[in-house]
Amino acid sequence: MIRTELSTLGEFGLIERINQQFTPTLPQTIKGIGDDAAVIDTGTDEYLLVSTDMLVEGVHFDLSYAPLKHLGYKAVAVNVSDIAAMNGTPRQITVSVGLSNRFSVEAIDELYAGIQAACEAYKVDLVGGDTSASRSGLVISVTAIGVVQKDKIAYRSGAKPNDIICVTGDLGASYMGLQLLEREKREFLENPDMQPQLEEKAYLVGRQLKPEARTDIVYELQDAGVVPTSMIDISDGLASEILHLCNQSGMGAQVFEENIPIADETFLTADEFKVSPLTIALNGGEDYELLFTIQQGDYEKIKNSPHISFVGFMTNDPQAVELVTKAGGRFPIQAQGWQHLNK
Amino acid sequence: MIRTELSTLGEFGLIERINQQFTPTLPQTIKGIGDDAAVIDTGTDEYLLVSTDMLVEGVHFDLSYAPLKHLGYKAVAVNVSDIAAMNGTPRQITVSVGLSNRFSVEAIDELYAGIQAACEAYKVDLVGGDTSASRSGLVISVTAIGVVQKDKIAYRSGAKPNDIICVTGDLGASYMGLQLLEREKREFLENPDMQPQLEEKAYLVGRQLKPEARTDIVYELQDAGVVPTSMIDISDGLASEILHLCNQSGMGAQVFEENIPIADETFLTADEFKVSPLTIALNGGEDYELLFTIQQGDYEKIKNSPHISFVGFMTNDPQAVELVTKAGGRFPIQAQGWQHLNK
Repeated sequence: MIRTELSTLGEFGLIERINQQFTPTLPQTIKGIGDDAAVIDTGTDEYLLVSTDMLVEGVHFDLSYAPLKHLGYKAVAVNVSDIAAMNGTPRQITVSVGLSNRFSVEAIDELYAGIQAACEAYKVDLVGGDTSASRSGLVISVTAIGVVQKDKIAYRSGAKPNDIICVTGDLGASYMGLQLLEREKREFLENPDMQPQLEEKAYLVGRQLKPEARTDIVYELQDAGVVPTSMIDISDGLASEILHLCNQSGMGAQVFEENIPIADETFLTADEFKVSPLTIALNGGEDYELLFTIQQGDYEKIKNSPHISFVGFMTNDPQAVELVTKAGGRFPIQAQGWQHLNK
Repeated sequence: MIRTELSTLGEFGLIERINQQFTPTLPQTIKGIGDDAAVIDTGTDEYLLVSTDMLVEGVHFDLSYAPLKHLGYKAVAVNVSDIAAMNGTPRQITVSVGLSNRFSVEAIDELYAGIQAACEAYKVDLVGGDTSASRSGLVISVTAIGVVQKDKIAYRSGAKPNDIICVTGDLGASYMGLQLLEREKREFLENPDMQPQLEEKAYLVGRQLKPEARTDIVYELQDAGVVPTSMIDISDGLASEILHLCNQSGMGAQVFEENIPIADETFLTADEFKVSPLTIALNGGEDYELLFTIQQGDYEKIKNSPHISFVGFMTNDPQAVELVTKAGGRFPIQAQGWQHLNK
């Protein structure tokens, strides 16, 4: 028996290996694996969108600093983010939870209070789920269902040369929040009498523990009459996501360092941790902001949005996905992404 | 801080507690939690159905005897079964898998080969999913999406007095298969040179390891022009499911012991294990057969089906959900169900 270690494939390699085995056969399945959400034709002028994500204790979250209520909220938000990334509107979710006896009824109530708060915030109905025992850690699996007008759907693959690359909000904050929480945890373990010093870091910690899906941007674009030519949500860092857009669109890109949105708090804390804010913004992950492209002609319609930064443009050279530094240097953008399976 | 142990609620109690918190608010959500699948109106003459289930290693399966390929098949089949239980047709699934480094690429290929075989058997497309590391056991979370003509949907709540209670296939075989596998495992641990003696028990073991969803019955009923007045799939044993139908329909039932379908293999093996075949059929679980009710007038249309047994009738006394024994005695039917959380 041959045994190939999972680590030789990595997460993306594994997903790619699985994807190749599954080709949709039904006429109703417009898009299967490979975008932020699957696309299903139900026979109306809207497509149905379906996305799913699994959060695993010890991999995606650490209950020593993630409050269960925030965790419930986040589990919903990250799935809603996938629906938003198709330019869609979320409608329903299902939530399955695997839990062990170490959780009390009160703890589970907290988790579901967070799920409920997210349902209210994003106006989605929880319509199903499963609760199961788990021999070890907490596992939360969420499936989100949404809709999008057929003529407004944004795939990863639709970018064209000269399209403007847009990023919502700011990047890297969630990763810096995670570093702060990990540091507090280490210090607490060394000195349990210590009081946490996170008040001044509320923005960064909040971005990590309770991220928001940018459904507001979907509405904003709709009001402005702009349909993105391509879109993806930024869950693994800007570098990884821009490569996905370029790869699936068959395009290249020029991204300008000076235009990448990074919050002051992220700059300051990156300095404190002696890491490059740019690296954090490119590879930090868990921002759940949107990365999308628009036609040049649509720029005027959204140029004054306080929520959108214009970070570069697409090119017709798929070999060149480049970062242009403030000093004018050009470097190929490389994905680091999350490599959970290698840990 | 008050701490209430999860075991005080039980699985059904926990689900009930969660359900009470979530009331659908969108007009498109026709039915949320509380049936085999959620029901969503997409604006056509069909409803969309959504169901989700999570399978956890050490709780729902034991990899020391469950081949990964069968496990993949089963994970899909049990979700397809929920779509069938709404009288629906499955269309798409998403599959999320949490796995640790102890799994090789070849092992994961086996798992997905089983998922693929099920997709082909039930004519569904795998359209999405997530692969994640897991700190411990294997976790498989599947969401199934299906459709049903609006005028053919079968809820748990639609049974009327005098409706005939129908059961497909036979009951208890899966549970006996599980007992056989558990016995083999114990004997193997005591004597690793032992060869498994399961050839003659292929039917029972197969029912446990690779159950089938009864999508064939949905087609059979459709061809016969019969719409069930209520329906549920038998995952927790006939007793538990008949109580669900009665409870949600506000009805009682009389179920006749002599009409409950039990395979010869189940009888023989129950005898070997010195357990009552009736108890196994009522409380064994994991049969994934369908339990449904029909109007008296529809009986003639399906009375000759080799796949359907007519086990009793509904009454208008919700206080009396009774088993009528071969000797003519009457006993209230009680649910034992699965109490994973109490283990």
